[in-house]
Amino acid sequence: MWGFGVKLVAYGERNIGMTKISEIGEFGLIQRIAPLFAPLTGEGQKGIGDDCAVIPLDAQNSFLVTTDLLIEDVHFIKDQINPFELGLKALGVNLSDVAAMGGQAVSTFLSIGLPANTDLAWADAFFEGYHQLSQQEGVALLGGDTTRSTDKIVINVTVIGKSENQFIKYRSTAQAGDCICVTDPLGDSAAGLQVLLDGISREGLAEVLVERHHRPQPKLGEGQWLGRQQEVHAMMDISDGIASDLPHILKLSQVGACIDLDQIPLSDEIRQVAAINGWDAKQLAVTGGEDYSLLLTLSQAAYSRLAAEFLKVFKKPLTKIGTITAQMGLIYQQAGKTIQAPESRYRHFKK
Amino acid sequence: MWGFGVKLVAYGERNIGMTKISEIGEFGLIQRIAPLFAPLTGEGQKGIGDDCAVIPLDAQNSFLVTTDLLIEDVHFIKDQINPFELGLKALGVNLSDVAAMGGQAVSTFLSIGLPANTDLAWADAFFEGYHQLSQQEGVALLGGDTTRSTDKIVINVTVIGKSENQFIKYRSTAQAGDCICVTDPLGDSAAGLQVLLDGISREGLAEVLVERHHRPQPKLGEGQWLGRQQEVHAMMDISDGIASDLPHILKLSQVGACIDLDQIPLSDEIRQVAAINGWDAKQLAVTGGEDYSLLLTLSQAAYSRLAAEFLKVFKKPLTKIGTITAQMGLIYQQAGKTIQAPESRYRHFKK
Repeated sequence: MWGFGVKLVAYGERNIGMTKISEIGEFGLIQRIAPLFAPLTGEGQKGIGDDCAVIPLDAQNSFLVTTDLLIEDVHFIKDQINPFELGLKALGVNLSDVAAMGGQAVSTFLSIGLPANTDLAWADAFFEGYHQLSQQEGVALLGGDTTRSTDKIVINVTVIGKSENQFIKYRSTAQAGDCICVTDPLGDSAAGLQVLLDGISREGLAEVLVERHHRPQPKLGEGQWLGRQQEVHAMMDISDGIASDLPHILKLSQVGACIDLDQIPLSDEIRQVAAINGWDAKQLAVTGGEDYSLLLTLSQAAYSRLAAEFLKVFKKPLTKIGTITAQMGLIYQQAGKTIQAPESRYRHFKK
Repeated sequence: MWGFGVKLVAYGERNIGMTKISEIGEFGLIQRIAPLFAPLTGEGQKGIGDDCAVIPLDAQNSFLVTTDLLIEDVHFIKDQINPFELGLKALGVNLSDVAAMGGQAVSTFLSIGLPANTDLAWADAFFEGYHQLSQQEGVALLGGDTTRSTDKIVINVTVIGKSENQFIKYRSTAQAGDCICVTDPLGDSAAGLQVLLDGISREGLAEVLVERHHRPQPKLGEGQWLGRQQEVHAMMDISDGIASDLPHILKLSQVGACIDLDQIPLSDEIRQVAAINGWDAKQLAVTGGEDYSLLLTLSQAAYSRLAAEFLKVFKKPLTKIGTITAQMGLIYQQAGKTIQAPESRYRHFKK
């Protein structure tokens, strides 16, 4: 789903000539589109900028809508992920967007384009994966489109969720002084991808990391619980890594942040596999995406109480990783010293 | 959007081996999926089978949701349609699904995958076309996904519409004795495609037909008006041609039909261009798709009154083209005689 924190630029400002899409990137393109459509946005509707769009349902409730497009050889390699896991993941990343705003999932829509020579067994396994997560979360597939593709598998999932308006969390509502928290360890998915890219043996702990890369679990329960806490101010899910995602909250909320790398939660698996392979686990945790942990800001005064209640309900910590600052910008600290920002490893349209 | 009128088969009945997707086709695939998800469908929700899914909004109203996937070289040839028209069409075919159930459009979502070397000017023109129809119909683009594609342009549009429950029309509610009507002339889009395929000079009337192929107009006003008439029993839009689409109404309603080819409405343009090129205009009108006329059944007794009112409001006839019969099956008549059924020219997954 489109989400971006940068200031919209006027559609008129262009000098396109023979400019290629790759030169302006995904955000550049969205910036060209958003102003065109903003005047058409209806009362109470909220469009581009958050994990989901918001469409009023009645005076108290809204629908939350998100959509994501996955293309073979851009978002996944057919030989590197089994179709069952791809089905899980295609749905999971969209359910995570609903979780990120505090919503519950209501229904899903799946468009799939398959080359004519795709094995039926592949399609069956894909749908079994999609179905398993649908069943786990109690959400129906209500429609879609099935068509032939020329050569690449193409998958688009749209999820419709629901929430009481008062419990919906946005990216634009972080407050200076808030602490920044995450619901789950970071970097496991990026480490799993690294295992695949480096061709490391997928045994033991490495296989656990690959599985976390392939089977992201949307945090719907956590999102709904956090949505109900009024001390939670801003929330989103981590799809591209906190180094890429937190700036969306910062720009839309007009605040800054300081992240303490020493507080980033790491799983035992990533610690051990990183140590064996000489990887920087913290770097993977900060810049690597697809963990689908929730990233939120909450009132400093409420942290201890909420973290204790969260631990009781979800049997895992709500980890504080930094602080929202009045001064703009994102800085990182380690061992009490400010360090250089890690670079994001992920961009659409760039190779 | 998935819509099919065949009886669901159990998911367990399979002997897949090395079967390819092309062997079972689009409907075969949907038949494998639908039973899996049926148990998850929530109260009041209606899924696969109609032009849109139905999601209850409150006791009186529902949301209508539809989605369609377009892939370059399967659904369009980049050199044969300008990007402005492709933007119009990508949105138009989805708005037509909302029209087909009597709804009004509320918001749209667009996922687009573009090869990195796509000209920015192409993308801008695409969005201008999408925007023009959005503005014409007063519907906002509330979100989407923008990503790199390897080589083909990929477009998925989801539209959310709305209607009072009492005005929603389905495919399953045709009654024996109903007359079958269409809101617009048929075959122009198919004739426009034929102009392109045969490389005929795109001048004068031929160009008008090509424009109708590239710029289908969703019949939202007509759909809402017809939705409010309780004598209208079943409705859908014509995306694949009546020879392919009417059977969906027949199977879901458990009725048959007799179509009188002499009553099929043809535009002056198709008559003249077909005469010049030796095409069978009636055959194009019955088997050709993408006209996006509405196809409906209504009580025979109400036809004269409704057709007169329709003419007054929309300045065009509501044309009666046949009759719903208690006996199953679809037969065609011409000059008072039963003739052989024309073959549909369109199937996904088949080359």
